[in-house]
Amino acid sequence: MKKLVAEAIGTFILVFIGTGGAVLSGESIGYLGIGLGFGLAVMIAAYTVGTVSGAHLNPAVSLAMLMNKRMNVTEFIYYIIGQLIGAFAGSAALLFILNAGQKATDNLAQTTFGDTSALGVFFVEAILTFLLVFVVLMVTSKSSGVGYAGLIIGLTLAALHVIGVPMTGMSVNPVRSLAPAVLVGGEALSQVWVYIAAPLVGGALAAILAKGFLSSED
Amino acid sequence: MKKLVAEAIGTFILVFIGTGGAVLSGESIGYLGIGLGFGLAVMIAAYTVGTVSGAHLNPAVSLAMLMNKRMNVTEFIYYIIGQLIGAFAGSAALLFILNAGQKATDNLAQTTFGDTSALGVFFVEAILTFLLVFVVLMVTSKSSGVGYAGLIIGLTLAALHVIGVPMTGMSVNPVRSLAPAVLVGGEALSQVWVYIAAPLVGGALAAILAKGFLSSED
Amino acid sequence: MKKLVAEAIGTFILVFIGTGGAVLSGESIGYLGIGLGFGLAVMIAAYTVGTVSGAHLNPAVSLAMLMNKRMNVTEFIYYIIGQLIGAFAGSAALLFILNAGQKATDNLAQTTFGDTSALGVFFVEAILTFLLVFVVLMVTSKSSGVGYAGLIIGLTLAALHVIGVPMTGMSVNPVRSLAPAVLVGGEALSQVWVYIAAPLVGGALAAILAKGFLSSED
Amino acid sequence: MKKLVAEAIGTFILVFIGTGGAVLSGESIGYLGIGLGFGLAVMIAAYTVGTVSGAHLNPAVSLAMLMNKRMNVTEFIYYIIGQLIGAFAGSAALLFILNAGQKATDNLAQTTFGDTSALGVFFVEAILTFLLVFVVLMVTSKSSGVGYAGLIIGLTLAALHVIGVPMTGMSVNPVRSLAPAVLVGGEALSQVWVYIAAPLVGGALAAILAKGFLSSED
Repeated sequence: MKKLVAEAIGTFILVFIGTGGAVLSGESIGYLGIGLGFGLAVMIAAYTVGTVSGAHLNPAVSLAMLMNKRMNVTEFIYYIIGQLIGAFAGSAALLFILNAGQKATDNLAQTTFGDTSALGVFFVEAILTFLLVFVVLMVTSKSSGVGYAGLIIGLTLAALHVIGVPMTGMSVNPVRSLAPAVLVGGEALSQVWVYIAAPLVGGALAAILAKGFLSSED
Repeated sequence: MKKLVAEAIGTFILVFIGTGGAVLSGESIGYLGIGLGFGLAVMIAAYTVGTVSGAHLNPAVSLAMLMNKRMNVTEFIYYIIGQLIGAFAGSAALLFILNAGQKATDNLAQTTFGDTSALGVFFVEAILTFLLVFVVLMVTSKSSGVGYAGLIIGLTLAALHVIGVPMTGMSVNPVRSLAPAVLVGGEALSQVWVYIAAPLVGGALAAILAKGFLSSED
Repeated sequence: MKKLVAEAIGTFILVFIGTGGAVLSGESIGYLGIGLGFGLAVMIAAYTVGTVSGAHLNPAVSLAMLMNKRMNVTEFIYYIIGQLIGAFAGSAALLFILNAGQKATDNLAQTTFGDTSALGVFFVEAILTFLLVFVVLMVTSKSSGVGYAGLIIGLTLAALHVIGVPMTGMSVNPVRSLAPAVLVGGEALSQVWVYIAAPLVGGALAAILAKGFLSSED
Repeated sequence: MKKLVAEAIGTFILVFIGTGGAVLSGESIGYLGIGLGFGLAVMIAAYTVGTVSGAHLNPAVSLAMLMNKRMNVTEFIYYIIGQLIGAFAGSAALLFILNAGQKATDNLAQTTFGDTSALGVFFVEAILTFLLVFVVLMVTSKSSGVGYAGLIIGLTLAALHVIGVPMTGMSVNPVRSLAPAVLVGGEALSQVWVYIAAPLVGGALAAILAKGFLSSED
C-alpha cells in the first residue's frame, strides 16, 4: 500500500511537471527543454518516492520488472493502480491551474500523431520506450550499483524527446498519454491505443535484452 | 553565528545569480534557463557554504528542518535572519549593477501574478515548494548518503520553473520574493503575502510526508 | 560476438538519436541541443551496452584503445564491423520514420563543409576528436575509477558541438558520417573521406598523449 | 614542466571551446549555452589534464591556491606561463578556423563593456570570480573528497554567465580576456586591465574566505 502511494505521488510529479511544462513553457524552452521537464521530473520522483517503490511511474517499466522477476503479479497490479491515480491527478491539477490562470484548457499535452502513419508512430514509441526501459533495467540492476541512477534515467528520458516530440508528441508511457486523452477526448482518445500498446512492446523487448546482458536477471 | 554568515552568503548567491539571470538574460535563455540560473546558484551555495550551514537559503526549507527536528528554534531564528540579510543584499547588488549598466531598475525579478487567481497561485507555489523541500529532505537524510545532493537539488529547482515562471513568476522561497518586492514596491509588495505563506505551507507538508518516508526522522 | 552486438546496438543509439534529433529538432533546440542529443545518446549507450563492450561507438575511440593495448587487432575488427552495422541501421531507421511522417528524406544529418577549406575542416575535426578521445581514455583508465564516466563523456561530446556544428557539421566519428553519406550521396559522399581520416588522426594523437599522462597505459 | 604543459593544454581547451562557441554558436545557444561552452570546456580540462596539474586554467585560481599554500611561488610562475601559452594558442586556433571558414575575424569573443561603468564591471567580474574560485577551493579541498568536482566547477562557471555575459561580456579569467584582446586590439585591449585586475581581487577574496571555512587550509 505504501508502494501504491509512492507510485501515485511519483507519477503525479511526472505528469504534472512534464505535461505542465510542455503546455506552459513549451514555446520558451524548445523540444529538449520539454524533455528536461519530463526527465528532471522523473529524477525528482526517483530521489523522493524512489526509496519506497523504485519510482517506476510507467507501466512499461513495471511490465519489464515483472518479466525479469524483480516484482510479482500482485505488486504489479498495485503499481499500475498507483500510476493511474497519479497520472489522472497530475492532469487534473494541470487543468485546475490552467483554469486559475484563465488559459486555454484544451491542451493538456495529450499525444496525437496527425500525418504520421500509425505504424511509424508505433515503431518510434516502441523503440524509444525500449531505450528508456533498457537504461532503467541496467542502471538499477544488482550488479550495477549506480547511485546516481535517477539522474541518468532523467537525462535519458530528456534526450529521447528530440525524436519523440516532433514524431509522435512523445509518450513512452501509457498512463502519461491515457490521463490527458480521457480529459480532453477527441483524436487523443481515439489514438491512445498506440501510446498504450507500443510502450508495452518496447518495455518487454528491453526486459528480454537486459536478461541477456545481466547475469543478475533470471 | 558562522551559520548565520553562511546562510547570508548562500542566500545572496541564490538571489543575486537567480534574479539577476532572470532580469539580464531571461529573453536569451528561456524559462528553463532562468530555472537553471536559480538551480545552479543553489548548487554553488551547496558546495561552498553548505559544509557550514547545510545551505537552506529558504525559510520553507528551514521550517521543514525545524519540524523534523534537524535544527532547534534558536538555530531557526539565526537561519531566517541570515537568509533575510542575504536576500536583501542580493537584490541590492542587482540594483547596483543595473544602475552601473544604465539599465532599467524597476525589474528585479519580483514576483506578481496578474490575471491568475490568488488561490491558483497559492496552490502552485505550495505544491512546487512541497516538491523542492521533499527532495531536499530526502537527499540530505542520514540514511540517504547522496553525496551529490547539491546537484540534484539544483536541477530540481530548475525543473520546477517550467510550471512556476509562467504561472506565478516562480518563488517557492519567501525571502527570494520579499527582497525585490520591498525594493520595487507596488503590486509585488501588495501580493507578497502569497509568496510568503504558500511556500511555508508547502515546506510543512513536505516535512510531514518525509517523516512518513524516512525512519531517520523523528 | 556479444561485443559486436553491443557495439552495433550502441552505435545505433548514437546515430539514430543523434542524427534524428539534429534533423527533427535542430531548429527547436539549437547547436548545443543537437550536441546534447548526440552526447546523451552516448550516455545512454554507456549505461546499457557499456558494461559489455565499453561503448566505443566510434572507430577513432577503438583505434586509440588498440594503440594503447586496451584491445587486440581481432577485437578491433569486430568492433568496427559492429559500429558500421549500428550506424547504417541508425540512418536507415531515421529514413524509415521520416517516410512514415511524410517528411523530406534528403536530410539525414550528413556532414558537408560548403565554403570552409578542407584543411580547416580537417583541423577542426581532428582537434575535436582528439579532445573527445582524450577524455574517454582518461576517465576510463584503470587508475581513474570515474564511475560516472558515461555522463562526463556525453557532456564532453555535447560541448564540442558548439565549434563543430557551425564549422564542419560535426562528425568526430567516421561511421556517424559514412552511414548518412552513403544513403544520401552527392557532396556528403564525395567529402566523407575528411570525416573518416581526420577523426582517426585525432584519436591517434589522443592515444599518444594519454600514454604520456597515464602510468597504467603501456 | 609537465604541469606547465598540462596547464597550457587545459587553458587552450577553455579558450578555444569557450570563445569559439561564443563566436560561432552564440546566436543559436543563448547566454547560458555560451556559459555551458565555457563550463563544459573546464570540465573537459578537469578530467584530462586535471590529474597532472589540477586544471587551474586561470591566474585567479592559481593566485588563490598560492595564497592558501596549495602551491609555491615557482609553481605559480610555471602555471601562469602555461596558462598564457594555452590562451594565446586557443585564440590563434580560433582565428585560424574563422579564416578557413571565410568568416569575420574581428570577433574572438574579446571582452569589452560599452556603456557600463568601469566600477560596475570591476564589481561584477570580482564577485563572479570570487564565486567561481570559492567553489574551486571548496570542492577540491582535502576534506571535501568530491570526486565529481570537475562537473560542479563546470556547471558553476556556466551559471555565472547569466550575469556576466550581459553585464561585462564575461571573463572571470585574466588570460581568457588578454589573448583575444591582444589579437583584436582596440577597445578590448584598452579595457583589458579591468578583466585582469578584478578576477585577481575576486580570487584573493575567495582564498581568504575559504581559509576561514576550511580547517585544512593554512
